[in-house]
Amino acid sequence: MNQMIRNFSRLTKEEKTELITKLFTSDAPAACELLSKYNLQDPTVQSLHDGFAENTLANYYIPYSVAPNVMVNGRFYCVPMAIEESSVVAAASKSASFWAQRGGFKASVEKAVKKGQIHLYYKGDKKIIFAFFEKVKDNLLRACEPITKKMTERGGGITSLALVDKTDVEKDYFQIDLSADTMDSMGANFINSTLECLAQEFKRLFEEEKIAGELQIIMCILSNYTPECVAHVEVSAPVDDMADGDMSGSVFCEKFVKAVRIAHLCTERAVTHNKGIMNGVDAVVIATGNDFRAVEACAHAYAGREGRYSSLSTAEVKDGVFRFWMDVPLAIGTVGGLTRLHPLAGLSMDILGNPSAKELMMITASVGLAQNFGAVRSLVTSGIQRGHMKMHLNNILLSMGASTEQMEKANVFFKDKIVSHSAVEEFLKK
Amino acid sequence: MNQMIRNFSRLTKEEKTELITKLFTSDAPAACELLSKYNLQDPTVQSLHDGFAENTLANYYIPYSVAPNVMVNGRFYCVPMAIEESSVVAAASKSASFWAQRGGFKASVEKAVKKGQIHLYYKGDKKIIFAFFEKVKDNLLRACEPITKKMTERGGGITSLALVDKTDVEKDYFQIDLSADTMDSMGANFINSTLECLAQEFKRLFEEEKIAGELQIIMCILSNYTPECVAHVEVSAPVDDMADGDMSGSVFCEKFVKAVRIAHLCTERAVTHNKGIMNGVDAVVIATGNDFRAVEACAHAYAGREGRYSSLSTAEVKDGVFRFWMDVPLAIGTVGGLTRLHPLAGLSMDILGNPSAKELMMITASVGLAQNFGAVRSLVTSGIQRGHMKMHLNNILLSMGASTEQMEKANVFFKDKIVSHSAVEEFLKK
Repeated sequence: MNQMIRNFSRLTKEEKTELITKLFTSDAPAACELLSKYNLQDPTVQSLHDGFAENTLANYYIPYSVAPNVMVNGRFYCVPMAIEESSVVAAASKSASFWAQRGGFKASVEKAVKKGQIHLYYKGDKKIIFAFFEKVKDNLLRACEPITKKMTERGGGITSLALVDKTDVEKDYFQIDLSADTMDSMGANFINSTLECLAQEFKRLFEEEKIAGELQIIMCILSNYTPECVAHVEVSAPVDDMADGDMSGSVFCEKFVKAVRIAHLCTERAVTHNKGIMNGVDAVVIATGNDFRAVEACAHAYAGREGRYSSLSTAEVKDGVFRFWMDVPLAIGTVGGLTRLHPLAGLSMDILGNPSAKELMMITASVGLAQNFGAVRSLVTSGIQRGHMKMHLNNILLSMGASTEQMEKANVFFKDKIVSHSAVEEFLKK
Repeated sequence: MNQMIRNFSRLTKEEKTELITKLFTSDAPAACELLSKYNLQDPTVQSLHDGFAENTLANYYIPYSVAPNVMVNGRFYCVPMAIEESSVVAAASKSASFWAQRGGFKASVEKAVKKGQIHLYYKGDKKIIFAFFEKVKDNLLRACEPITKKMTERGGGITSLALVDKTDVEKDYFQIDLSADTMDSMGANFINSTLECLAQEFKRLFEEEKIAGELQIIMCILSNYTPECVAHVEVSAPVDDMADGDMSGSVFCEKFVKAVRIAHLCTERAVTHNKGIMNGVDAVVIATGNDFRAVEACAHAYAGREGRYSSLSTAEVKDGVFRFWMDVPLAIGTVGGLTRLHPLAGLSMDILGNPSAKELMMITASVGLAQNFGAVRSLVTSGIQRGHMKMHLNNILLSMGASTEQMEKANVFFKDKIVSHSAVEEFLKK
């Protein structure tokens, strides 16, 4: 099969499944049966899920777990996490319990400014376009009232609108920069719809009033870079209270602080260090129906905001106290998008006590810091492979239908060996 | 409920579900029933999924879709995508078909170097530690042969091992830097296990040979930053062949090139631009059982490698030809991890024709570029909200059980209004 498939999107789900399995899989009936297993039996709920994307054949499964004992600002949360990587939920839960016994996470969100821009080119006299913008600014805001009215009534809405001169980076390039308070929603639809409406009206008035110069609107789009929508989270405890197994509190803290410092100094390490934070963050973002690509893009751009990619978290020991903290941008919502539409995202909100967006930001940041603490703790004490490989081994054994006896023997055999599918297969053959 | 839950991880799945729904949800029986719906009926397969993480209560569903007509280096692929955001699969499919009629994606992978480091502090004479390292290097490599043997037999393994002086950034700080060829696996387990074994042996020999100075090993860990594991992908076509609706090819290309240029100049835009690329990339990464946090962290750090966060993709018009390309680091695998363990990841590999890791890198990068092309095309032509809001509206209507007639009326009513859950609810009441 090396040719175009035409009009694929117009086929029914059944026709799509039949065609794709026939053309592309090694065993079409088996593939069909597998896909059918990964569809819900209730057709109404399944068609709701199918509506979230296009060309859907089934549901991809990611484990839906919970990390209990996440204490944030004195309150205990049980946090839903959706993640396919082993050890993450276990590490987050363990760290959360550890810190719950030491006062928990202290978190705060100062503001939650969301932004978007109309990107445009204007050839002409700068003074003219700025004067025109100031003159029509109120008209623009009025023109998009049908879109902004509800948000304004709820206490949010557009908080600023400005024409920005960007001609220092590119000839004739300007932005109309919008800031908004989107309350408990992530705000993408609000901002994009508002920007498109503003741009249309701006262009209409520019032409109607026959303004001198040439205007070209390139695009209108929210920005996922939200450095003014940041959660701060921290934990602290006396150094003596940080002993880990045989390791004294002071040795543990010394190694921990050095490990985090290395993540500040070295990009190779910073990327993996922050990846660990995002293991925790994304798991909550996904379980609550938020968009993890948006959160990821912003967090990592933020990690490089000073011109060098660096650690999001910082650790120190001062006056006998260990302190570990992080600032992380999190443009997430608790209404809108899939946050209520996806039945399990809805359940997540319920389990979390129906938090506000700011509260969810603080919970998510806490899980990120918990995750980071757990990973760095493992790294500076026992190493991460011991626990990790054991779980991986058991997963492989499970998938091969190994007996309890075989599993026990395999666990002894692989103590000092690398676990792989083929190695386990070979072991079972023997 | 504002207290610790102890020994939660030791409970059975049923006990966990009962406890969490009782303590944290507004309607425990309904929550239990919902969770039960999101579990597979086949207990063997469900326990396989439960084994991927810890404290699992159910499976979180993400739509499992396909984008047909992705032509890479002359071959047509049907690409599985797992993503919960509407429009992504549709846009990728549309772009893929568009480019399949214009020669498709040209992709290449030069090398796929994976890295890891032993981070250590050494107080003493630099010459001594370097001499010691050179002396024991072969011993170190031999010591980890039980781990590396299989990979070496398959043609991969450790490709370099070096002691790196990092004292310019931090007093006494050194790295033992490992490069590896992990063949078709992502390689995290291989690298981490190897590093831990190397570090143990390094420390043992250091002590055994009573080397002068003080050695402290902080941690051993792979780096998710893989700037030498990059896929290049590009498309090109005559400008005249790029007309879009009413827009001529030359106007379209001019606006498109400007839009991509803005993503190079402006961080606010670059983050969202790259987020769009990752919409496509992550969907393939997830559908093939790979780790999207690793890919995300690396891609965005790479986007900032020149000291300013910038666009991953570039567009130009030269001699009447439009060209659009991207380099994106992608440390992904087609064996190991969940790539075969997760039944749907296994099916994805089958649908893709069981590609090598390098082939999967090229396919994934192509979908990323397709996605980016689709998003920027929408932005510079019709705007992105029209299609997006329609789908969002229909999802909400579906979740509220609206009739066909109500859906038609709603689509007319919301043409110039912002779609939200409450607005649709209000509309249906009327």
